[in-house]
Amino acid sequence: MMLNDKAKALLDKPKQFATISTIEPDGRPQSSVVWYVRDGDDVLVSTVADRRKHKNMVRDPRVTLLVYDAENPYEYVEIRGRVQMTTEGGRELIDDLARAYMGADRYTMDDGTDNVRVVCRIVAEKVVSR
Amino acid sequence: MMLNDKAKALLDKPKQFATISTIEPDGRPQSSVVWYVRDGDDVLVSTVADRRKHKNMVRDPRVTLLVYDAENPYEYVEIRGRVQMTTEGGRELIDDLARAYMGADRYTMDDGTDNVRVVCRIVAEKVVSR
Repeated sequence: MMLNDKAKALLDKPKQFATISTIEPDGRPQSSVVWYVRDGDDVLVSTVADRRKHKNMVRDPRVTLLVYDAENPYEYVEIRGRVQMTTEGGRELIDDLARAYMGADRYTMDDGTDNVRVVCRIVAEKVVSR
Repeated sequence: MMLNDKAKALLDKPKQFATISTIEPDGRPQSSVVWYVRDGDDVLVSTVADRRKHKNMVRDPRVTLLVYDAENPYEYVEIRGRVQMTTEGGRELIDDLARAYMGADRYTMDDGTDNVRVVCRIVAEKVVSR
């Protein structure tokens, strides 16, 4: 599944946030606000191993990611897909995101914790945009 | 379930958009960007009868609504709850929302359509905020 140019342009606006929705054990949706970066036709998000969101995605990899233009929320893209997760490159990704969103050298909020960073690669199966 | 003052203050910021997530027939999440208004401890959203989102909520009323501060997306509130739906007051609600978000007299985008407007009252069962 490929992203069209309009979806890519919207996703590539700097410092835009996304909502990612996962499925709880009881079947309800659960949403949170995340940093992301587009990688070709995929979108990458960072999470921490064993957090609720991570546990949900381990159990059911079907997620949806919604991004809307903060300056014009009538333009949005929703990516329904499956997430592939790995700890490989997990630290690099969160540092890249901290640079992009905060202008930071690296992500320091994990310092002094045991947080294991996970790369969540969202592979689109359906894209809805306006 | 009552909303705390911080959640209310965030929800009450004018012209803020929300993401509502429903559950597809196959159990996946589905998200869209919506206008909303707080009514006490509930949040009201408008939809159109027989649209995908409406059908999803008829089948499974469990939804989650996420609002983040456009100026500071690190502050957000997620309301997990159940939706109660009625067509009563459906036209009034969409007109109220059009006034609040667009400064319009009334909502004109349904003109010339058979759209039946539905009031979706989201009753919180769990609130997560930061």
